Amino acid sequence: MNSKIIRSEQLREFCEEAFFRLGFNRGDSTIITDVLLLSDLFGIDSHGINRIKMYYQHIKAGYIDISAQPEIIMETPVSAVIDGRKGMGQLVSNVAMKVAIEKAKTFGVGLVTVRNSNHYGIAGYYSLMASNEGLIGISMTNSLAAVVPTFSKTPMLGTNPIAFSFPASPQPFLFDSATSVVSVGKIEIYNKLDKPIPLGWGLNSDGIDEHDPAEVLKSVFSGKSGLHPLGGGSEEFGGHKGYGFSMVVEILSSIISLGTTSNHIEKEKSTAGVCHFFAVVDPKIFGDPMTIQKHLENYLEEIRSSHKANDHDRIYTHGEKEAEMFNHRKVQGIVIHERTLIEMKELSDELSMDFDTYF
Amino acid sequence: MNSKIIRSEQLREFCEEAFFRLGFNRGDSTIITDVLLLSDLFGIDSHGINRIKMYYQHIKAGYIDISAQPEIIMETPVSAVIDGRKGMGQLVSNVAMKVAIEKAKTFGVGLVTVRNSNHYGIAGYYSLMASNEGLIGISMTNSLAAVVPTFSKTPMLGTNPIAFSFPASPQPFLFDSATSVVSVGKIEIYNKLDKPIPLGWGLNSDGIDEHDPAEVLKSVFSGKSGLHPLGGGSEEFGGHKGYGFSMVVEILSSIISLGTTSNHIEKEKSTAGVCHFFAVVDPKIFGDPMTIQKHLENYLEEIRSSHKANDHDRIYTHGEKEAEMFNHRKVQGIVIHERTLIEMKELSDELSMDFDTYF
Repeated sequence: MNSKIIRSEQLREFCEEAFFRLGFNRGDSTIITDVLLLSDLFGIDSHGINRIKMYYQHIKAGYIDISAQPEIIMETPVSAVIDGRKGMGQLVSNVAMKVAIEKAKTFGVGLVTVRNSNHYGIAGYYSLMASNEGLIGISMTNSLAAVVPTFSKTPMLGTNPIAFSFPASPQPFLFDSATSVVSVGKIEIYNKLDKPIPLGWGLNSDGIDEHDPAEVLKSVFSGKSGLHPLGGGSEEFGGHKGYGFSMVVEILSSIISLGTTSNHIEKEKSTAGVCHFFAVVDPKIFGDPMTIQKHLENYLEEIRSSHKANDHDRIYTHGEKEAEMFNHRKVQGIVIHERTLIEMKELSDELSMDFDTYF
Repeated sequence: MNSKIIRSEQLREFCEEAFFRLGFNRGDSTIITDVLLLSDLFGIDSHGINRIKMYYQHIKAGYIDISAQPEIIMETPVSAVIDGRKGMGQLVSNVAMKVAIEKAKTFGVGLVTVRNSNHYGIAGYYSLMASNEGLIGISMTNSLAAVVPTFSKTPMLGTNPIAFSFPASPQPFLFDSATSVVSVGKIEIYNKLDKPIPLGWGLNSDGIDEHDPAEVLKSVFSGKSGLHPLGGGSEEFGGHKGYGFSMVVEILSSIISLGTTSNHIEKEKSTAGVCHFFAVVDPKIFGDPMTIQKHLENYLEEIRSSHKANDHDRIYTHGEKEAEMFNHRKVQGIVIHERTLIEMKELSDELSMDFDTYF
């Protein structure tokens, strides 16, 4: 099977049916599919349909409870603590973000911390839920430990992404970023291409900076060592800063929810126990939302039209690349790689779906 | 005059008197001194007493209004917008953070955005005001443009620091960091030592990565180019991520307050118009504060006792270095460099103070 370009509508039909057959109701299957599909449409291939096998395995093994009902275990007008009850991360997070949005609409701000959830896909999906309603959205999650603190060689932190989005035209400002130099997914891509990675991304099992992506992956998956935080492995280029941002994610997700810190997420279960944090703020508590939005749009335009760095002919503001890829893939379809297609085929066989009628 | 070790009590007396003679009342002089002194005690020499000349010049030139009364121009139970009225950054920020703390104590969360302020010293001073009262504190500020967005060679962003602190024992967790690779102050130190800087910190006036700190400083102060965001000058090591964190600071300080973005802060005035953001959250809205704090302390201890990186014998958690330097300098005194002593002497002559009675 070669890689294939597939229209997003076809991918949606396949995904929705697969999650339905895995036991989710139609509504939940649609939500999960939405999150995965947006990742593929944004060009973040590592967090979309290519993860379907992982979710499937975790459901089969019982790490993800398909019938879990997330529970609000503590609440104030501006906050909530949610126990995900081992539910699917996308579903737990959808509930949690909606709670945060409702609170922000009523009281100006909503803060929701979540424990006992699972891998939730791209952080930006949830922050966009807020900015699509004219609100400021923040989303972050811890994850299986894969990142070493500065001067440590033990993975103690997840890649712990943070997403921040703000309403703007023609697309929201959307910053969505791991707090590590690169994601594990990026190293997997280099590995597939048999391409050396730059020194400074990650360590091998001996805790030494390594060019070979396979060695770094081995080190991550064995828990022996891992990736560097944003800023790299020393203080010279600010590795302690990336480590700090990662700690902020950890504190707002796993610490204040009394959940599982990244280093205690069990390797074999890999996502069970993951913790999230969502914050929503209504910009109208600071002034006229359209005036504020205009102020941001002017600034973004000033940045884009500032003097280009040598050898560069375009300056991006955050969210532009995603929006352009979205528009492109909506029309042109999504490239699905060979390995992912094989996994999808295997899954559809197990679920008695006719793969060929979908693609 | 050679550099000198001075006890913090002497430095406090000198500073308080100098700011009093500059026109501030006794209470305000104490607050300003407090902020500068904590920076020196933490070992962040670039933001302490060595900035006294800058403040003096800005006061003399009228950029800082010593009698300004910060005004709350919009308010909800959980938020406020404050116009600093060109006041001294430390005083405006002290008022703003107190407002945020009061709101958090009453409603669980307080968000305060500030425009028309001035340079406020170290970000961490204000987040610590919250964590010293058992609350989660966040503090950030924009600043004179000195950092280039990814693929731009124009400084459009300040070094835009973020501080996050959380109550813990024996000292609070304190992450306080510029969102650039390094601060302007650090490059000034290399310049004084006539030491080349690593490629990847900043650009010369031609927008080319530069080893000579003098050339990078020239480039920053002329506004021709500047420093790289955390992650460096390309996407390879995540420069777009540092640029994103810097944008978050800009949005929460200058955008939602309808204030001055870093690129519009006038170079000759350098600090006038600076914008801040403060957030305070009471951890008790998420659970028992001591149980949460204990959970954090356990995690910090696990990190510190994880396997050390090769050639390193200690792993720090954020706030430890500051606390240790504080304890050291409280007893041993603070090293004040020759140039700073000369500036202090000049200032004391202008203010008819007898320099020698202080030191």
